[in-house]
Amino acid sequence: MARSHNFSAGPTALPLEVLRQAHEEFFDFAGTGMSVMEISHRSEVFMELAYQAEQDLRAILQVPSQYKVLFVQGGASLQFAQVPMNLLGDKGTADYLHTGLWSGKAIQAAQRYCDVRIAASSKASGFDRIPAVTDWNLNPNAAYLHYTENETVHGVQFAGAPCVSVPLICDACSSLLSKPIDVAKHGLIYAAAQKNMGPAGLTIVIIDAALLDAALEVTPDILNYAHIANAQSMLNTPATFPWYLTGLTLKWIQRCGGIEKIHQTNQAKAELLYRTIDYSGGFYRNSVQAPFRSINNVPFVLADTAFEKDFLRLADQSGFKGLKGHASVGGVRASIYNAVTLLAVEALTDFMKDFARVHG
Amino acid sequence: MARSHNFSAGPTALPLEVLRQAHEEFFDFAGTGMSVMEISHRSEVFMELAYQAEQDLRAILQVPSQYKVLFVQGGASLQFAQVPMNLLGDKGTADYLHTGLWSGKAIQAAQRYCDVRIAASSKASGFDRIPAVTDWNLNPNAAYLHYTENETVHGVQFAGAPCVSVPLICDACSSLLSKPIDVAKHGLIYAAAQKNMGPAGLTIVIIDAALLDAALEVTPDILNYAHIANAQSMLNTPATFPWYLTGLTLKWIQRCGGIEKIHQTNQAKAELLYRTIDYSGGFYRNSVQAPFRSINNVPFVLADTAFEKDFLRLADQSGFKGLKGHASVGGVRASIYNAVTLLAVEALTDFMKDFARVHG
Repeated sequence: MARSHNFSAGPTALPLEVLRQAHEEFFDFAGTGMSVMEISHRSEVFMELAYQAEQDLRAILQVPSQYKVLFVQGGASLQFAQVPMNLLGDKGTADYLHTGLWSGKAIQAAQRYCDVRIAASSKASGFDRIPAVTDWNLNPNAAYLHYTENETVHGVQFAGAPCVSVPLICDACSSLLSKPIDVAKHGLIYAAAQKNMGPAGLTIVIIDAALLDAALEVTPDILNYAHIANAQSMLNTPATFPWYLTGLTLKWIQRCGGIEKIHQTNQAKAELLYRTIDYSGGFYRNSVQAPFRSINNVPFVLADTAFEKDFLRLADQSGFKGLKGHASVGGVRASIYNAVTLLAVEALTDFMKDFARVHG
Repeated sequence: MARSHNFSAGPTALPLEVLRQAHEEFFDFAGTGMSVMEISHRSEVFMELAYQAEQDLRAILQVPSQYKVLFVQGGASLQFAQVPMNLLGDKGTADYLHTGLWSGKAIQAAQRYCDVRIAASSKASGFDRIPAVTDWNLNPNAAYLHYTENETVHGVQFAGAPCVSVPLICDACSSLLSKPIDVAKHGLIYAAAQKNMGPAGLTIVIIDAALLDAALEVTPDILNYAHIANAQSMLNTPATFPWYLTGLTLKWIQRCGGIEKIHQTNQAKAELLYRTIDYSGGFYRNSVQAPFRSINNVPFVLADTAFEKDFLRLADQSGFKGLKGHASVGGVRASIYNAVTLLAVEALTDFMKDFARVHG
């Protein structure tokens, strides 16, 4: 079986072990004589699977007990609306950090529901950094502060969770489960599964139960975090197969040695890529300031853009998939989520060096 | 491989042929060297799959060209809110038919956004019929009339789409693709996939393009039908694996001979079950009026309820799964969606007859 090296920004590679287990029990899950896709979400066997996935996520991220973990649909883009709908209460205003394309989208969606204040922005410098905390203009009366832990398009990432006086909301879409996160510092964390956790169709929300009482009147019950939490994420039929695969991936993370070990591997992968770029004699370039370079998405350009098309074509032919940069910025992007192996990154850096040698 | 007979109300049985194909190409979809779950929704190969699924759905249901077909997340329960949010315009009121548990939920969700008028209800008679059209109290100024084509819990179904002067909205969750539907009579039809189309996590919306301009200000962009249609259902990452499996199921429906043939088989399955109930000498009972009996969900009770527990236990042991009635009504329910074979229904009716003989 020839597997491609998958550097897609998501949906993307799943751990081969996880795929193998799903393949193995595809027609008969847990002795039911049915695929896991075919069983009721209210059956004992699925309820147990769902419970186990939550427990494993809680263990891996050390989620404090007062936090609820929700398994929902709709992706981060639905959270962009669901967060203000659920958390504004009577505040009428929220703070946002603008650090790239995705935080920009979160801001746009929130503006429908409140007065959005941009506490800080790195737009002027082309989203090449996280603005210095000393430059943040925080509103102590904001309903919350929203930040995007990792900017998937611009490849910019926070070094750690900021400390603020209002509830801290984190879009951790492309980084959750790729590195430790201090849940207790946050009011709410959300992430779609299709980066480091599973296939598309599932979104995880981790929310401090203290925030479950501030939904705007316009919030549909089905999007109300309090109702979802009360129903153990089964107000209606959840995305059962993505939930199942995410559960398998959580077990895989534990077998890998947990989140610290996963993080070390991800750091090694990122380091290798950035080193290859930085030591390419200017052939490749990544312009994000070093402390803020993402370990999840490594965007770069070829100094001579004339070679870019050839690079992408040849890479694709050589089995390196999904390397085209986001349409809004162009260039190249290597997304190196959990299931992308160090071996795959080594193969890619070898390819990059060869390409630079031939065309440089 | 011992497969159970799956009578679950959803998620439920998928066609074995579909599962086999998905299993076959699980690690390498269309020569990509990746699982279909691992490829970008914006890749050529996925875009082609997505397009093909839409074309097949259009062909099977003869969807007129001025209708958009959307592939979204969130299930019917999100549509309960999304429909009024998107279609009310400045009307402020909508008509609903109350024919069972699910239309009741649709009504409750809509009340957040408008003055809901119950045009007709069969609540007084225990949801045993569709109210006679002559008794409907329709408002010509309503934004739309909403009906639930098939009530999954109560087993009540419309014989055909009503003719009304306002846009007609159909919750076809448990019946879409199980029988023909006259799309042109409707303003909008929605259905979650996990009954007759695929696994949980995907919802199909078929909407007349003329209705794309009436969203309330509170509607999030990500839930706005017009925006979704403009982006070919890819405003953000869709549920790619359910989309793929639904695509395979659409091909399977075509191989079965199309929607008329599927309908004939479903009618035969339902007929066999109702006959077994009606000719059981009162051992089993279904109290829905004959013209409105569902071909998708056949709920029944045992006249002597003392045997119910034994019936369900013995059925489960004999490989008949998912027969427990909905928590709100109890009893037994056989859901006989597209992928449930006539053979499986025959086996179930044999079991029912045996059980009645022994316990009757």
